[in-house]
Amino acid sequence: MEEFERSTLKSVGHPRFIPKAKPVSENLERRLWQELEQIALIDPHSHINPHAAASKNLGDILGYHYYTELAHSAGFPRELIEQEGITPKEKVRRLVPELKKIRNTYQYRWLMEICWDFFGFESSDLTESNWEALYDASEQQMASSDWEQKVLTQSRLEGVFLTNDFDDPLTGFDTQFYIPCLRTDDLVFHLSLHKTRQRLAQATGVEVTSSNTLRQALGKLFDHFCAHGAKACAISLPPDFAPEPVTDADIAQVVEKMFASSSDYDLTNEQRRLVSNYVFWKLTEFCADHGLPFDLMIGVNRGVYQAGVYQGRDLYDRRTSLFQYKSLLNAFPQVTFPISVLDHTANPELVSYAWIFPNVVVNGHWWYSNLPAYIHADCQSRLQGVPISKQIGYYSDMYKLEFALPKFRMYRKVLSKILAQDFVQDRGWSEEQALRLGQELLRGNVERIFKIG
Amino acid sequence: MEEFERSTLKSVGHPRFIPKAKPVSENLERRLWQELEQIALIDPHSHINPHAAASKNLGDILGYHYYTELAHSAGFPRELIEQEGITPKEKVRRLVPELKKIRNTYQYRWLMEICWDFFGFESSDLTESNWEALYDASEQQMASSDWEQKVLTQSRLEGVFLTNDFDDPLTGFDTQFYIPCLRTDDLVFHLSLHKTRQRLAQATGVEVTSSNTLRQALGKLFDHFCAHGAKACAISLPPDFAPEPVTDADIAQVVEKMFASSSDYDLTNEQRRLVSNYVFWKLTEFCADHGLPFDLMIGVNRGVYQAGVYQGRDLYDRRTSLFQYKSLLNAFPQVTFPISVLDHTANPELVSYAWIFPNVVVNGHWWYSNLPAYIHADCQSRLQGVPISKQIGYYSDMYKLEFALPKFRMYRKVLSKILAQDFVQDRGWSEEQALRLGQELLRGNVERIFKIG
Amino acid sequence: MEEFERSTLKSVGHPRFIPKAKPVSENLERRLWQELEQIALIDPHSHINPHAAASKNLGDILGYHYYTELAHSAGFPRELIEQEGITPKEKVRRLVPELKKIRNTYQYRWLMEICWDFFGFESSDLTESNWEALYDASEQQMASSDWEQKVLTQSRLEGVFLTNDFDDPLTGFDTQFYIPCLRTDDLVFHLSLHKTRQRLAQATGVEVTSSNTLRQALGKLFDHFCAHGAKACAISLPPDFAPEPVTDADIAQVVEKMFASSSDYDLTNEQRRLVSNYVFWKLTEFCADHGLPFDLMIGVNRGVYQAGVYQGRDLYDRRTSLFQYKSLLNAFPQVTFPISVLDHTANPELVSYAWIFPNVVVNGHWWYSNLPAYIHADCQSRLQGVPISKQIGYYSDMYKLEFALPKFRMYRKVLSKILAQDFVQDRGWSEEQALRLGQELLRGNVERIFKIG
Repeated sequence: MEEFERSTLKSVGHPRFIPKAKPVSENLERRLWQELEQIALIDPHSHINPHAAASKNLGDILGYHYYTELAHSAGFPRELIEQEGITPKEKVRRLVPELKKIRNTYQYRWLMEICWDFFGFESSDLTESNWEALYDASEQQMASSDWEQKVLTQSRLEGVFLTNDFDDPLTGFDTQFYIPCLRTDDLVFHLSLHKTRQRLAQATGVEVTSSNTLRQALGKLFDHFCAHGAKACAISLPPDFAPEPVTDADIAQVVEKMFASSSDYDLTNEQRRLVSNYVFWKLTEFCADHGLPFDLMIGVNRGVYQAGVYQGRDLYDRRTSLFQYKSLLNAFPQVTFPISVLDHTANPELVSYAWIFPNVVVNGHWWYSNLPAYIHADCQSRLQGVPISKQIGYYSDMYKLEFALPKFRMYRKVLSKILAQDFVQDRGWSEEQALRLGQELLRGNVERIFKIG
Repeated sequence: MEEFERSTLKSVGHPRFIPKAKPVSENLERRLWQELEQIALIDPHSHINPHAAASKNLGDILGYHYYTELAHSAGFPRELIEQEGITPKEKVRRLVPELKKIRNTYQYRWLMEICWDFFGFESSDLTESNWEALYDASEQQMASSDWEQKVLTQSRLEGVFLTNDFDDPLTGFDTQFYIPCLRTDDLVFHLSLHKTRQRLAQATGVEVTSSNTLRQALGKLFDHFCAHGAKACAISLPPDFAPEPVTDADIAQVVEKMFASSSDYDLTNEQRRLVSNYVFWKLTEFCADHGLPFDLMIGVNRGVYQAGVYQGRDLYDRRTSLFQYKSLLNAFPQVTFPISVLDHTANPELVSYAWIFPNVVVNGHWWYSNLPAYIHADCQSRLQGVPISKQIGYYSDMYKLEFALPKFRMYRKVLSKILAQDFVQDRGWSEEQALRLGQELLRGNVERIFKIG
Repeated sequence: MEEFERSTLKSVGHPRFIPKAKPVSENLERRLWQELEQIALIDPHSHINPHAAASKNLGDILGYHYYTELAHSAGFPRELIEQEGITPKEKVRRLVPELKKIRNTYQYRWLMEICWDFFGFESSDLTESNWEALYDASEQQMASSDWEQKVLTQSRLEGVFLTNDFDDPLTGFDTQFYIPCLRTDDLVFHLSLHKTRQRLAQATGVEVTSSNTLRQALGKLFDHFCAHGAKACAISLPPDFAPEPVTDADIAQVVEKMFASSSDYDLTNEQRRLVSNYVFWKLTEFCADHGLPFDLMIGVNRGVYQAGVYQGRDLYDRRTSLFQYKSLLNAFPQVTFPISVLDHTANPELVSYAWIFPNVVVNGHWWYSNLPAYIHADCQSRLQGVPISKQIGYYSDMYKLEFALPKFRMYRKVLSKILAQDFVQDRGWSEEQALRLGQELLRGNVERIFKIG
């Protein structure tokens, strides 16, 4: 079933572990990559708006925070990027000259692959002299009524997870394809805002007056989401979050007062901790009741750079540990936690925790860790130390559909290098075996872990 | 303006992202690896029981916590793995179907190399259809009276360090080959347990009533171990441990009361810290007196996953630093500290501390860091920044002899890659020079640092 | 004894360091490296004494702390290295036998490249049998009146940043070539020392009696440095430093008392924090006023190893984060902060902060992170995630001019690997494009960021 190089170097042991001689290892890598490109995907985490999933023009594409924040970081004024009332075309006109400062980045590579693959762009770079023709031509292509379908087909996407506000009605789109996911940051961290409590009341019809009615309201959200085919609950968490159970008694008074208030409510730090912990723990209980995995995206501090562009203000403090989740992981053996870490250096801990805890699944390569150099190191160690059934290879995190293709391609290229080197070359696996591993990472595990189909 | 390889593989997309072909130098790497395989070893850290060093059946091998914990992590119930009264063969029967979920792991690779190398197994994987024949055949092989010797010879082992309880009589085996090492976790962290104090009394004949008699008892242990050829003292330490000297006066009262108690003794956190620090510091003084290196294995939190399988419950908190050992490293210039770190991201600190402190030696690749991807990065930086004389390349940490071969082979393969790339290719070293470096890492330094022979 | 490929590319240096041919893709890497070697440099950070920039003998070279600390770490007594009154030749005689313990280190490689490139040394290693001839011959070469110029020319150095004490008169040398940089550690951390306050009074003529006059004195330093062509301010910072603004009122009393004192002044921990923060914040304000970048070198604990050799006593605590600089980075958008981190595992945070904050620039590979393995990982992720305009590739940190050549060569080799693999091979860039990237990292960005020429 496998091919081994029948080495004559018997002295060292069984030929099975003799690494293959590797002239032309690149052809192997390329071959594997091309096979991996054929695997159809269900993207397990995105920010797609199912009512406007594809881009309408290059402005939608260059408006992705990766480009605005990098242009801003390289010196372009936020005021010019975010000026009220400018057209998408004007925004692109302004951003294009800044791109030369970020041509080295891999984010720029995504942009060019979109231009090459979807729009047939023939130049190696987007410049002041060629952008406008591309803008106009691509706008026409994107105006086609089947553009969304064309992007999905070319990207081999067969399902896309969303990130839905807790009060999203979840209607008007195909929830079999655009799969709802209950995003819970607002509930855990922003109940002190009057607006959040209002939204909760409107979404659930429950008038919260106590921890008991708060729990009822949260339960209604899960009923609503599960009735509309939700397959996951998700949250992003700051580096200092350390969930512990909180009793109803601990929280009773503050919940009562907060929900009685008709404005934003001032919490002390300890009250804030109690409310966050209480709600987070209750959400996890509902995940258990409804059989939903709970995606934990660990490590983001919001608003660190106050003068940043939209969505370009968040960073992190690397002094955080999965040890902070000890109580949670022990308390909920029946809940699967696909975990993403923002800081690349948190990956070894994630590998170790997923290696030991049955309910910890490693999940993709998030945001600041979504660079090929980090993906390579992270993916390599995960494949060496974590059961394959507990690994979700990649998610796009995209806001517009066109980004799935270059982002997943980045991952597939890294994966092909690792499969070629570590598995086929070093361990003597057949290419077929290696590709089956890739299939699990890219597709099989997503279906199984999120119970799809 | 750019050159692209005009691939004909149009199906995957624009030719722009087709990687270019690239050729070889694997023969060099393979040659070095085969030479490294010839180096005979003294394994500087294991958990071998010298009275039952080799395995008796596949159950001993698959019972290694790496397999039980990975199977459990992948979803197999602990109750089925650890059920009372099942035979070794029944345990293997249960575990084999779970192996397909961990075929990607390098731990599985160790297992297969054992099957291939020691038992002549011819299949690429252990499956439900082939395990039983292997079980029976291998059990016969292991029943041979020279099995232990056969394993040692084939593994090129010429000495194996043990991990001995402080009350181990150290008799009934060849201490020249199975070298005693005084393991001290119980003394430092579990003196509050009545059983530990009883064992200490029985082992030393000293009735501890004061810090003075406690010191006497500890001294007796060192006398006993050194009389039986012990070559090291060792301990594993939690991430928050930060040793500082403690005076006899600080500890007098709690020692007196604790040892007067005939049950487990409740220590406050501060008392616990004082007792641990006191005993640890005294042990280090005895290491100084007896010329013993003190192996510090830094970073493990015990029992993090409470429902885990035996030996599969420990994890860590990466928020730890070697800076916590500043006082110790300054206070004991005469004691050599071979240091292992549990968290891969602690390796750069270890490199820096070994680069500066004469008494810090880098020691192997421990437990969760014992994966080829981590070993490669760690070994590479150690070779670039730490004097060669201060590096112990690898230890097996094994419980059964059969594991030395695949574990050391994993290390030798990584090392051959680094020697080939960094030393022969990039620095122009001769292969002979590179192999001398490997010889020091694998054998020479072990002999010198632990004063063997 | 070793085989070297006798390359005909004499222009780049002695054939000894030309890596061996490695079929195809290596030729690309080598070609890129040789082109990178041609780029003339302005070294943006060194400790060169402009009045004695080049070495006078091998003692100056082997006296570099990298060699003394590594020899000491490998077991050589400090007393023998630092004995009063020994000649440079005697020091070299003592150190040479120790070198065999550190031949594996990359620091040793720098030494050999200096011997090969500058002195025409023909042996592969410096040994007890060949050092003295080299010592004598090289001392003659270094005695030549044009030695400094020869080193500069051969190293392609066209400018060298200094590290000047705040009371340096900055006279007697060409400040266009040896560019002043105001080093401020003493002001921020050692104002409690009487000697520091005396030096400040002497340098500025300001009698400090209040926070107001303290600010005046600091302002005078900036006037003096800028009048003499300073292009940067710089400081090294401990891992627990977390700058916050301090009001004049907060600091008034302690400043008054401290400056009234005629001896070293005892500060409480809180006073120490206030004074450091106040001075640091004022320095940053002056950087803003004078348009000077402020080099932050983050993470060093001084004097961790008390018995270490000169300059070989400092280490770090990896529990630190750039999050500690949140207030500063937000408060001073107009100040450019080239940031270096001491701990390799801090690099991902640095990449993320430079990706978001316009005023954060990644700066070189500092001290314990200045090893090829770390440089490779750090440089690769920086190139993937940070705008190219915000990256200073490398600085020498040297004390003697001869070290620029091997240190920058180490960087150029790593860079050539990354350009070959990640850009030309994986992204299909032309070699010309890749080299333009290298040009920015090595030269262009230094000129632009520090406003030179």
